[in-house]
Amino acid sequence: MSSMTGDKIKISVFGQSHSKGIGVVIDGLPAGQKIDMEKVLKFMDRRAPGKNSLSTQRKESDTPEILSGLVNGVTCGAPLCMVIYNENQHSSDYNNIIDTPRPSHADYSAYIRYNGFNDVSGGGHFSGRLTAPLCFAGAVCMQILEDMGVEIQAHIQKIKNVYDDKIDFVNIGKWNTDTKAFPVINDEKSKEMIAEIEKARENGDSVGGVIECAVTGVKAGFGNPMFDGVENKLAKNIFGIPAVKGIEFGNGFDAIDLYGSENNDEFCIVDGEIKTKTNNAGGINGGITNGMPIVFRTAIKPTPSIFKEQNSISLENKTEEKLQIKGRHDPCIVQRAVPVIEAVAAITILDLLV
Amino acid sequence: MSSMTGDKIKISVFGQSHSKGIGVVIDGLPAGQKIDMEKVLKFMDRRAPGKNSLSTQRKESDTPEILSGLVNGVTCGAPLCMVIYNENQHSSDYNNIIDTPRPSHADYSAYIRYNGFNDVSGGGHFSGRLTAPLCFAGAVCMQILEDMGVEIQAHIQKIKNVYDDKIDFVNIGKWNTDTKAFPVINDEKSKEMIAEIEKARENGDSVGGVIECAVTGVKAGFGNPMFDGVENKLAKNIFGIPAVKGIEFGNGFDAIDLYGSENNDEFCIVDGEIKTKTNNAGGINGGITNGMPIVFRTAIKPTPSIFKEQNSISLENKTEEKLQIKGRHDPCIVQRAVPVIEAVAAITILDLLV
Amino acid sequence: MSSMTGDKIKISVFGQSHSKGIGVVIDGLPAGQKIDMEKVLKFMDRRAPGKNSLSTQRKESDTPEILSGLVNGVTCGAPLCMVIYNENQHSSDYNNIIDTPRPSHADYSAYIRYNGFNDVSGGGHFSGRLTAPLCFAGAVCMQILEDMGVEIQAHIQKIKNVYDDKIDFVNIGKWNTDTKAFPVINDEKSKEMIAEIEKARENGDSVGGVIECAVTGVKAGFGNPMFDGVENKLAKNIFGIPAVKGIEFGNGFDAIDLYGSENNDEFCIVDGEIKTKTNNAGGINGGITNGMPIVFRTAIKPTPSIFKEQNSISLENKTEEKLQIKGRHDPCIVQRAVPVIEAVAAITILDLLV
Amino acid sequence: MSSMTGDKIKISVFGQSHSKGIGVVIDGLPAGQKIDMEKVLKFMDRRAPGKNSLSTQRKESDTPEILSGLVNGVTCGAPLCMVIYNENQHSSDYNNIIDTPRPSHADYSAYIRYNGFNDVSGGGHFSGRLTAPLCFAGAVCMQILEDMGVEIQAHIQKIKNVYDDKIDFVNIGKWNTDTKAFPVINDEKSKEMIAEIEKARENGDSVGGVIECAVTGVKAGFGNPMFDGVENKLAKNIFGIPAVKGIEFGNGFDAIDLYGSENNDEFCIVDGEIKTKTNNAGGINGGITNGMPIVFRTAIKPTPSIFKEQNSISLENKTEEKLQIKGRHDPCIVQRAVPVIEAVAAITILDLLV
Repeated sequence: MSSMTGDKIKISVFGQSHSKGIGVVIDGLPAGQKIDMEKVLKFMDRRAPGKNSLSTQRKESDTPEILSGLVNGVTCGAPLCMVIYNENQHSSDYNNIIDTPRPSHADYSAYIRYNGFNDVSGGGHFSGRLTAPLCFAGAVCMQILEDMGVEIQAHIQKIKNVYDDKIDFVNIGKWNTDTKAFPVINDEKSKEMIAEIEKARENGDSVGGVIECAVTGVKAGFGNPMFDGVENKLAKNIFGIPAVKGIEFGNGFDAIDLYGSENNDEFCIVDGEIKTKTNNAGGINGGITNGMPIVFRTAIKPTPSIFKEQNSISLENKTEEKLQIKGRHDPCIVQRAVPVIEAVAAITILDLLV
Repeated sequence: MSSMTGDKIKISVFGQSHSKGIGVVIDGLPAGQKIDMEKVLKFMDRRAPGKNSLSTQRKESDTPEILSGLVNGVTCGAPLCMVIYNENQHSSDYNNIIDTPRPSHADYSAYIRYNGFNDVSGGGHFSGRLTAPLCFAGAVCMQILEDMGVEIQAHIQKIKNVYDDKIDFVNIGKWNTDTKAFPVINDEKSKEMIAEIEKARENGDSVGGVIECAVTGVKAGFGNPMFDGVENKLAKNIFGIPAVKGIEFGNGFDAIDLYGSENNDEFCIVDGEIKTKTNNAGGINGGITNGMPIVFRTAIKPTPSIFKEQNSISLENKTEEKLQIKGRHDPCIVQRAVPVIEAVAAITILDLLV
Repeated sequence: MSSMTGDKIKISVFGQSHSKGIGVVIDGLPAGQKIDMEKVLKFMDRRAPGKNSLSTQRKESDTPEILSGLVNGVTCGAPLCMVIYNENQHSSDYNNIIDTPRPSHADYSAYIRYNGFNDVSGGGHFSGRLTAPLCFAGAVCMQILEDMGVEIQAHIQKIKNVYDDKIDFVNIGKWNTDTKAFPVINDEKSKEMIAEIEKARENGDSVGGVIECAVTGVKAGFGNPMFDGVENKLAKNIFGIPAVKGIEFGNGFDAIDLYGSENNDEFCIVDGEIKTKTNNAGGINGGITNGMPIVFRTAIKPTPSIFKEQNSISLENKTEEKLQIKGRHDPCIVQRAVPVIEAVAAITILDLLV
Repeated sequence: MSSMTGDKIKISVFGQSHSKGIGVVIDGLPAGQKIDMEKVLKFMDRRAPGKNSLSTQRKESDTPEILSGLVNGVTCGAPLCMVIYNENQHSSDYNNIIDTPRPSHADYSAYIRYNGFNDVSGGGHFSGRLTAPLCFAGAVCMQILEDMGVEIQAHIQKIKNVYDDKIDFVNIGKWNTDTKAFPVINDEKSKEMIAEIEKARENGDSVGGVIECAVTGVKAGFGNPMFDGVENKLAKNIFGIPAVKGIEFGNGFDAIDLYGSENNDEFCIVDGEIKTKTNNAGGINGGITNGMPIVFRTAIKPTPSIFKEQNSISLENKTEEKLQIKGRHDPCIVQRAVPVIEAVAAITILDLLV
């Protein structure tokens, strides 16, 4: 269970923040697909830390090494295993969290779940570092999807109370957020968002955000009713990303402010094809795609690692203790989570389509 | 796939709105559990239509018949199959939707998915009527959970712009919404909500709402990281309920308005036990319960069936057509969805705990 | 778990020997398939008891009632639920086995597994009667397979030391065992086999047998390596049939008597197509079909219900007791198991091919 | 799919014979288990080639490297990933099989399945080398099982027409086959078997065999009816081992030679505990353990790689061709398959018990 998912494209993620390596096995990839490793690395680089003052200055070596599944760069049908070796396996920064769990991290729940044997160093298997293999798997899946005419893009919709431009659910267009250091559509808004992040950083604090993702090019008729629909599959996998606390499709929670007559997506014929005039459903009815863009938003909570002193407890003594988290941490991970959301969307949509 | 879910408690839902019967098979129930059918019927009755002017006046016979799995009212370990026979199998009201899909229903996506062979009558397998078996399964699971000290309750948090009282995520208390015709905590608010629904009804329109659900009594340490956590499992199953378009845990999307220092749940010792002072995480860290109440909210879109004339198309002619939906429909299904949310939560949490 | 199986075609079997009903939900059937119920009933009739002195004289009403999944006899993509109502729900014959488990039945292991709450009446969920829903599901799947050019047939290969004619694994031919009361290829052999069964019956004893099944028309390239190959899938499902204690593919255990040079299936070109000269592999290499007929044999142990007095124990008193099984029982179930094997093969192969 | 299996203990096997590495991810191991790597290596060594003239002289480096899942040699609950790096990645020996599939290997079926993109080198993902990760996973699971009082042992029951001593299914005893270069119970028989293998080798031919495995210490009450029983689970996984063509439980196919009265396992009380006098059921009734030893036998076909010239075809030209397999190959792999059977049994039984 736990770190495996998928029906036809199955992935198995392994590794802890400070273990010898982290990686992923992808089982079920169609054979004969040329994988452009340059593109994969470029995609993974969007998630990598240390690119500016907004994210952690830890050096993270994210060079993926392919152990299996490719022959001369082409998928051979066998499981594709990728490993990233952890160079820095020092973990002294985490000594004090062994007994003093960090608020809103998995330290405490994992301590109970694993009888105290969980790897606390760097957050262990719960570390955000484990999203690197997800990005690798997503980048591979995305190349296959591109050949099928499917495109996936995401942007930061909101940081604190600063919103990016509202997108048109019907005509998604090209956001080019994959080429931006800070992936928002409106660069003016990115300045405001960055200012919010800087402010949090200066206060030893953190902020979260909302990421909006659009998948275009998926034809009508994919998915299933009830428990195996597109929303179920995406939700199941997206919640696999650390710090995600909510997901909504189409206009999601905002639909409550509308009447049915406003929220319903009326049908129309455009160039001889059946479309809907609006896309409040986010491309999915009854768990099945309707041919309109799939749109969903994800809530990323503020980074739980902050520099401010916090109240915690001693697991051993069951006494209240103060906690000062050491090391370097991101005041905001939302910009780095954007490719992760795209990646998990790619893995899920490929599983849906093959 | 599709209408089956679960790891240890597996359910398989079957039936169409106007088929001979609808029902559910529950596989994996612990043996030796006495099932109180009176309680089950009472629970199912909370979902039943026709109780007041707010919901459809169709007569719906929801008498569940147990075909297997019980011996003298006690689970025997064999799959429990329950059937509700559909009395009224007339379907003339739906004749016009065979060619003219209803906006924001699954008519069109299912038409493509099933090459036009889907059962359109009454919405077929996509009908809200299929939530009756879910309620049955949930009511059964809930009785087992109660014996384990777990309690599940839900309330309407919002209809249009009317909010029920804000709940305390740390001390959930007793809402008694299971005894109310309109399940809100603050009865004054219920009047305002009902007024909104009536207004929509008078206009031949509909409204949606947000349902908030709390699960108390689950100890810390249940769940798994990544793809098999509590949030993943709940999200996967909750999206199995028609009209759900979003789910958020704890303070969900509202976390974006907070700094990390505000959103983090600091630990404390209460009566010798480890608790958190706040519960913005909704009881789950890293996919694993932390012992605090599990809290989540679900967005239920406005009922897509409205009386107002709408724009649709002819599937055969690929021409634009006007559509007037006949029959009786609910201007709001949120109040009836409250027990359904509880039921799916019960099924999921029991699967987590056994 | 337990009584559900399948990846794309999922089935969920429910019911106990004496519960109100037994049946199956089939999820994932392709939409638009006309189901010929006459053919289904004819197939199910091959398994039905009471046809001659060899099998039980109990009256068993096996009239399947379709509750969902068909619209005018055509699959609509929604789960197909079929129920057979148990007419005779008397269970006095089984009173003494509540405390005294029948040797080589599941009475004792189920008693422990379900803490004594298992339904002992008629064998409960472990009864051979549960193969009736399997036959229904198989008959439905077989009609879809036939349209794909796939044919499945089985025969009794052996009863005691009497063997049916040896089949040619390369050219399967037409056995017509579906039209015979006693499904063997060589009718002379059937007389000898029946004589063996009669002998056992006269002695209050029972015999088992080997069933051989061939699937023709499956092209090369279906299946997967390791744990999801054709052998894995067939074995997993075939062991779901009561009394099955072994399965072998191609020449199976007999391969041990051969050298590699004898056992290897050399390739050849026949009418421009790649074939193998022999088919000792039973149509499967590395878990993947090679285009030759899929051939497997299944060991069906002697009916454990015998009239001879046996040694058993009292579960409550933990004392040794004599057991005399009452009621009517088959001295041999192998002839009735033949269509069951075909049915489970059909379910599995359809799951493989869709 | 394909190379992943398991419910609670999930494994994901990756690698090709000549890829950079092969390995396995084990997901779901209980946390806090000390893993004795010396014992793991010793177990894996039983499978390693090159130990005598009977098996291939290729140098195979089977040093497992743990990438994740252990902290100071103790399981931490995170997925355990192990990699064996392939030193020798030369593959010229296999050049001629690219177009000329080896009889009774997966070359042809995989060629069709993967549109010619499968890795043919060394057999790719279908190579027997992939059983090394299985042995690793099995060795880890076995240590956990030992702490639970469960013991697994296997022996060669038969090579050609030479049988090892018949074992007592009720009192398994200690075979010590884990300490023998040639794992049979009766060392005299091993000489005869080795003579058979030598004879085959001298003729450029090969032989197969039957492996018998016994699992002791599993209490009654584990497993499920129908499709999720102990036999289903073991069969599904055991067929994941290359060259396996049959599996039988207890006396399996031999039960056909017996009457029900001979084959039934009568109950008795031994030292106050419920036992059966015989164990023809191999410890399983109705898919559920009955507390007696679990016994099963597996047919391992003769090694398909032989030195004798064989008939094959050209995939490209669709012409008949002669094939001479080069390289070094085992005239018999049965002795090396013994620990592999034990390993897969350990993985499966641990999945059953946790």
